[in-house]
Amino acid sequence: MGIEEFRKNAKDMVDWICDYYASNEKLPVRSEVEPGYLRPLLPKAAPQSPENFSAIMQDFQAKIMPGITHWQSPNFFAYFPSNSSFPAMLGEMLSSALSTVGFCWIGSPATTELETIVMDWLGKLLCLPTSFLAFDEQGKRGLGGGVIQGSASESTLVALLAARARALAGRPMEDAGNLVAYSSDQSHSSIKKACMVAGTPYVRIIPASPEDDYAFDAAALEEAIREDIDAGLLPFYCVATIGTTSSCAVDPIAEIGRITQQYGLWLHVDAAYAGVSSMLPEYRHYFVGLELVDSFITNGHKWLLTNFDCSCMWVRNAEPLKAALSLTPAYLRGKGNDLDYKDWQVPLGRRFRSLKLWFVMRSYGTENIKKFLRHHIQLGQLFVSLIQTDARLEIVTPPRWGLICFRVRGAGNEATQELLERVNKSGRAFLVHTELSGRFVARMAIGGSLTQERHVRGAWQLISECTTEVLAARSKYSKGA
Amino acid sequence: MGIEEFRKNAKDMVDWICDYYASNEKLPVRSEVEPGYLRPLLPKAAPQSPENFSAIMQDFQAKIMPGITHWQSPNFFAYFPSNSSFPAMLGEMLSSALSTVGFCWIGSPATTELETIVMDWLGKLLCLPTSFLAFDEQGKRGLGGGVIQGSASESTLVALLAARARALAGRPMEDAGNLVAYSSDQSHSSIKKACMVAGTPYVRIIPASPEDDYAFDAAALEEAIREDIDAGLLPFYCVATIGTTSSCAVDPIAEIGRITQQYGLWLHVDAAYAGVSSMLPEYRHYFVGLELVDSFITNGHKWLLTNFDCSCMWVRNAEPLKAALSLTPAYLRGKGNDLDYKDWQVPLGRRFRSLKLWFVMRSYGTENIKKFLRHHIQLGQLFVSLIQTDARLEIVTPPRWGLICFRVRGAGNEATQELLERVNKSGRAFLVHTELSGRFVARMAIGGSLTQERHVRGAWQLISECTTEVLAARSKYSKGA
Repeated sequence: MGIEEFRKNAKDMVDWICDYYASNEKLPVRSEVEPGYLRPLLPKAAPQSPENFSAIMQDFQAKIMPGITHWQSPNFFAYFPSNSSFPAMLGEMLSSALSTVGFCWIGSPATTELETIVMDWLGKLLCLPTSFLAFDEQGKRGLGGGVIQGSASESTLVALLAARARALAGRPMEDAGNLVAYSSDQSHSSIKKACMVAGTPYVRIIPASPEDDYAFDAAALEEAIREDIDAGLLPFYCVATIGTTSSCAVDPIAEIGRITQQYGLWLHVDAAYAGVSSMLPEYRHYFVGLELVDSFITNGHKWLLTNFDCSCMWVRNAEPLKAALSLTPAYLRGKGNDLDYKDWQVPLGRRFRSLKLWFVMRSYGTENIKKFLRHHIQLGQLFVSLIQTDARLEIVTPPRWGLICFRVRGAGNEATQELLERVNKSGRAFLVHTELSGRFVARMAIGGSLTQERHVRGAWQLISECTTEVLAARSKYSKGA
Repeated sequence: MGIEEFRKNAKDMVDWICDYYASNEKLPVRSEVEPGYLRPLLPKAAPQSPENFSAIMQDFQAKIMPGITHWQSPNFFAYFPSNSSFPAMLGEMLSSALSTVGFCWIGSPATTELETIVMDWLGKLLCLPTSFLAFDEQGKRGLGGGVIQGSASESTLVALLAARARALAGRPMEDAGNLVAYSSDQSHSSIKKACMVAGTPYVRIIPASPEDDYAFDAAALEEAIREDIDAGLLPFYCVATIGTTSSCAVDPIAEIGRITQQYGLWLHVDAAYAGVSSMLPEYRHYFVGLELVDSFITNGHKWLLTNFDCSCMWVRNAEPLKAALSLTPAYLRGKGNDLDYKDWQVPLGRRFRSLKLWFVMRSYGTENIKKFLRHHIQLGQLFVSLIQTDARLEIVTPPRWGLICFRVRGAGNEATQELLERVNKSGRAFLVHTELSGRFVARMAIGGSLTQERHVRGAWQLISECTTEVLAARSKYSKGA
């Protein structure tokens, strides 16, 4: 494909993308294909001869599109939002075209330096403690700074590795066998996964209770740490969450931070979804205590208009991270090695991800980004008020940000399960469930880039209709009719 | 930014990309900025109000571009190539627009299924043993299959985790403290890094010798394994390489495979750069023995025209991988869970990477992909013949594929170091060095998507001129003149 052919095809692709964004709300949100649907539709091997762009796009439209679950549909309310935006897409196009692999500074200096700068921009916008920034107001380089990881899971893992390096520094290697990590049972599965990957021998998952709205029980944490120290173990890492995946519970950061400081644990705060709300004064109270925290993440690719992947992580001191992850073979030695982001992450190679975040922050400006967040928070409140008009449904945990957990009132788990399956099968909205204290709970996660009031009202209408159907089907009187 | 504004801006971006590809050979390949150049050029904080696309692009051009090292320049001969291509960029645009997060099957079925299919396509093209494919010729699902990881480092880590899960199955947890991994000292740094991440207690790095052209010494490996078993340790993982980073050494896969099978180790083959040449009959002999291998990777983003990131990994049996990495919380439980690629990788989220590989394989067709590889191999031979005309330079290790290791003959390391610095400073080419047995060696890595004969001849001309300058500067007679 020569340059002129690409120019034409790429502009056709731009038109396709525009059409997609103009009309994706009409598509079934959750794909309704069956597992294995695609293989019979495609050839068994790659073609020997070139095929042209329009043939590929025709196949894409006819064969791939039915298998797409539309994360960018304004009617997508599943998991957490995974925002895309036009400015981010422009940044991605540019990054893809340059295709730099910025593992070390000299590999592409701007790839590294822009990341440090935009992470400082975002850190300031989020009012993070200055110790998390690469440069303070006077331009002095600190020990910490930001880095863009691929996902929150990688951030959690990398923080664990830094915690381990710090905990084991100056200790005999055998102590690695005594390490204990802590989190609440509402923390993300990536914490357990990080421990599996790192081979951390012990993980204590502290149960959170509905009475605390599923927040981390700091007293139980302290008790567990003391118990483990008495047993000769080495507590080293704790993950607290601001906005848990199941129900957006908020852990008491300041309280936990005092404990982890006292006992010398690394405290990582996972605010993958809700962390961006730290830029709103009305949410700052959730973030009190961040000065006691060692690492903090929020995902640009969740609720900050920046296409996946863009997990924004800050550390107060990058030295333990580098101690855990730095290795520089001859072919990577060169100028600027102390800036190499390869030493802040598990992979060696890395894309020029900061470009899209730079495009987003400049194209929207901070005032519009704040408006965007408040818009979804208001839509969340609207949805809460709609649920509250309907006695057949109940809200299960305190609604926070754009996440509302609800279920069919006074019925078993099956009723909510059936409700969700009807809603999703309609293609008009997609929600997933969670389990809280054995209860099957529907999660309405509002925050899509394109989601407007009419979509939330439409989802509510659908939920209401489906509730009627579910309850009718479950009533023996209707069955008898 | 509304749809019509995006349409205009994105088409302008397409034009920018076309201009870039039409002219990037004129740009200095290696950026010549100094560390910290960018911060004074950009504001200290994100703007409050929106800025328009042309303002951002002006800043990009004026401030970011000078800090870019041009990996896509046809004069980029550093590290290994990191191919981009127009079809891959179209695939990336589409992937970015859909912005699906395919961690589980239902999250976007086509995102998962297309990956399985194109990885089978590529596996067949590379003549991998059928056990590496997801489906055999009769359409029967096997135990293995392919997955696209972000980087070779992640593939190496994930293989190590699978190896550990397999080795420890049914054993007491304490045995984790006895695990030993093996590789040669020519293996990629990611192996040591994987061990650091996973907390593997022992790694044995077997020295490779120049007499073996830096290939893995299989006899020394077997001796080390026996020694370790006698010492009560548990050998579990070995990494062999086809095309090492330093010099493209080729480890004897069949020989190593027989040893790892005998002693029950997981054998991972890292063919990140050279693995794609397995599709060429004239290179098949390097890949003999793959049926004894547990996992194999080659990077689509190195020499297969597919923009970073696209690390193609195959496993013969995915069960140990899932045992090491699978965790499914309530909100991820659903139909098709046995296909979830989240269980094949460290992160949870994942981009729709197979689209770009699908675009590449269809747009080029396998015959043109083979031509593309052979074209660079021929350019490598041309470069070898040019070096051989010049008695002042010597080739250090057997040239393979597009990699040629050379140095200034009969001079100390400094001469080659000065040569390389002069070459790179000119902006007309970029090469990096490696160290082989204490010698400073220049690496000429040919394989850029745009690299043609004239670029290789131009680089040779430059190297020749710089050699004259270096030798003149080092001669006391010229100094005296």
